[in-house]
Amino acid sequence: MKTKIAVANGDGIGPEIMKAVLRVFEANNVPLEYEFVEMGKSYFDAGHSTGMTTAAKETIENLGILFKGPMETPKGKGVKSINVTARKVWNTYANQRDFRTLKGVETVFSKAGIPINLTIIRENIEDTYGGIEHLLTYDVAVGRRIITRPGSAQVIRYAFEMAKRKGYTKLACAHKANIMKLTDGLFLETFLEIAKEYPEIQSSDIIVDDLCMKLVTQPQNFQAIVLTNLQGDIVSDLCAGLVGGLGFAPSANIGDNISIFEAVHGTAPDITGKGIANPTALMLSGILMLRYMGFTENAATIENALLYTLEQGVHTGDFGDKLKPSVDTSGFADAVISN
Amino acid sequence: MKTKIAVANGDGIGPEIMKAVLRVFEANNVPLEYEFVEMGKSYFDAGHSTGMTTAAKETIENLGILFKGPMETPKGKGVKSINVTARKVWNTYANQRDFRTLKGVETVFSKAGIPINLTIIRENIEDTYGGIEHLLTYDVAVGRRIITRPGSAQVIRYAFEMAKRKGYTKLACAHKANIMKLTDGLFLETFLEIAKEYPEIQSSDIIVDDLCMKLVTQPQNFQAIVLTNLQGDIVSDLCAGLVGGLGFAPSANIGDNISIFEAVHGTAPDITGKGIANPTALMLSGILMLRYMGFTENAATIENALLYTLEQGVHTGDFGDKLKPSVDTSGFADAVISN
Ligand SMILES: CC(C)[C@H](C(=O)O)[C@@H](O)C(=O)O
Ligand SMILES: CC(C)[C@H](C(=O)O)[C@@H](O)C(=O)O
Repeated sequence: MKTKIAVANGDGIGPEIMKAVLRVFEANNVPLEYEFVEMGKSYFDAGHSTGMTTAAKETIENLGILFKGPMETPKGKGVKSINVTARKVWNTYANQRDFRTLKGVETVFSKAGIPINLTIIRENIEDTYGGIEHLLTYDVAVGRRIITRPGSAQVIRYAFEMAKRKGYTKLACAHKANIMKLTDGLFLETFLEIAKEYPEIQSSDIIVDDLCMKLVTQPQNFQAIVLTNLQGDIVSDLCAGLVGGLGFAPSANIGDNISIFEAVHGTAPDITGKGIANPTALMLSGILMLRYMGFTENAATIENALLYTLEQGVHTGDFGDKLKPSVDTSGFADAVISN
Repeated sequence: MKTKIAVANGDGIGPEIMKAVLRVFEANNVPLEYEFVEMGKSYFDAGHSTGMTTAAKETIENLGILFKGPMETPKGKGVKSINVTARKVWNTYANQRDFRTLKGVETVFSKAGIPINLTIIRENIEDTYGGIEHLLTYDVAVGRRIITRPGSAQVIRYAFEMAKRKGYTKLACAHKANIMKLTDGLFLETFLEIAKEYPEIQSSDIIVDDLCMKLVTQPQNFQAIVLTNLQGDIVSDLCAGLVGGLGFAPSANIGDNISIFEAVHGTAPDITGKGIANPTALMLSGILMLRYMGFTENAATIENALLYTLEQGVHTGDFGDKLKPSVDTSGFADAVISN
């Protein structure tokens, strides 16, 4: 029996990389069926303020899992990112991104022999992402930053559970509670409280600026880090850079009823339609999804094939300035399949 | 004739590194006189809520320049960092930090042959640093983030002027205006407006998370970046990491009437009193101060001696896990003096 999930191709290079990933899934006999949903910039432009049709929303809510390509953020004040809206309407409170050294993807850290294997868990709903802002006068803009105890607790608990599941021995909470004593203070307090329930995980806290300094000097010392939304956004991208860029980082938005697995890189309008985009991030997100759904064998097989493909030096155009691309999107999928 | 400036030793290792730096200044016949002021954690503990005595405040306001060591942030909700209070009371609206590859200070980037030479200009007063927060309920904390047009304009203008003075060809504005459309939007709008007055500087804008990814993959592509307060705080520390840590980065807080030059690393209570702390960051801040005050020759001579000292491999205990310290704080100062 196959499980049905919702799939949104996304904008720009979305359809191309989605096709490549689903082809790999098919070749591996992944027991999934796909219902393609109407979601993305063009649906926003057609008047759907959330960036999706009512039918799409219903399908996703029925199926519980959405696998999605990148989506363009509509321009204009007061208009919200489709990605951010999706995270919010379905209360996908934990954003998980796994970063690790990939053989075949060269970075200054891989060259220096520094191995990276860390996970960022970012609170996905609160903070300034509520978009509660107003112009007090023409010259003064005020934004509101909201942190709640239950909102913090659910993502922190997820982080501890994930750390356990992954066999991590430690989890750090990063924050700026020395300045934002009440908001980040509440997040930190909640972390310290929940940490007591997980004596087997070594918990610690670190100021976010100090964290960033340490991440670029000794990333090997970190395993898992939980943060509030905006700080987590910034630190996630920093970590993506450590392993080669957003093209090599999977992302999951976990909620109790609905979870979204997505590539978080851009829609790359400059190369759209050329069939040369790198499907690695979306494939890694798909692998994360398979694991989350319990298809651990499929996940492991595809992951090994992908890692081996990268290690062989098979690569699309975005692997570094000096490398000539060896394959296009579909050729990359072929290589993964044959591996 | 000598110019008088205010000096605050700071807490922890502050007095030791200040002594080392002033000894170097003296050996170079820097035409400065020092008035030591009462400012730091112990004055906060003694009941001065701003962390300084009234006499200290008056002296600093009369002299206009404060050279300061690191200061400990008092603990407790509602209590503010002494550093942050000082920046605020005197409206030192621009925080400038220069980061560059230092020969003798090994990092993954120096090993990879990637040269770094960039300046972060951070807005120093507004944003969530106002500390305007309240607990709406036991479970809900709300903070306010404030961005103003004049506040943005003064730091952005400083950034353009600095870029010109340093001979930079470009200046980027980093922000998260795709999410915080009104607050960061106002900062960005102000940047784009002022950029028109500086056609000789190539201006651009970049989303702050993307910036962080690029800073760890291609830092050589950046010269100067201007940001709002908290984002600038985070990015500054990231950049410090790129060149070896906060122990190697100078910092200036520039205002129209008062400017503060300080080491921004911690007070290092673990090594306080041992005389082994690294005075490099404070010395670099002092050099920045001399240049700001127009003592460009003294600045150049001391800078060359310092760079040469580092290049010779003379180092205190914090230069990297694998290196044995070759000197203590005072020995480091001796080496700079003899160079
Ligand atoms: C596109 C943008 C709204 C989004 C965010 O800020 O969350 C992105 O940076 C991400 O990390 O998924
Ligand atoms: C100590 C702390 C309050 C301060 C800040 O956040 O500004 C520090 O991180 C800095 O960058 O100077």
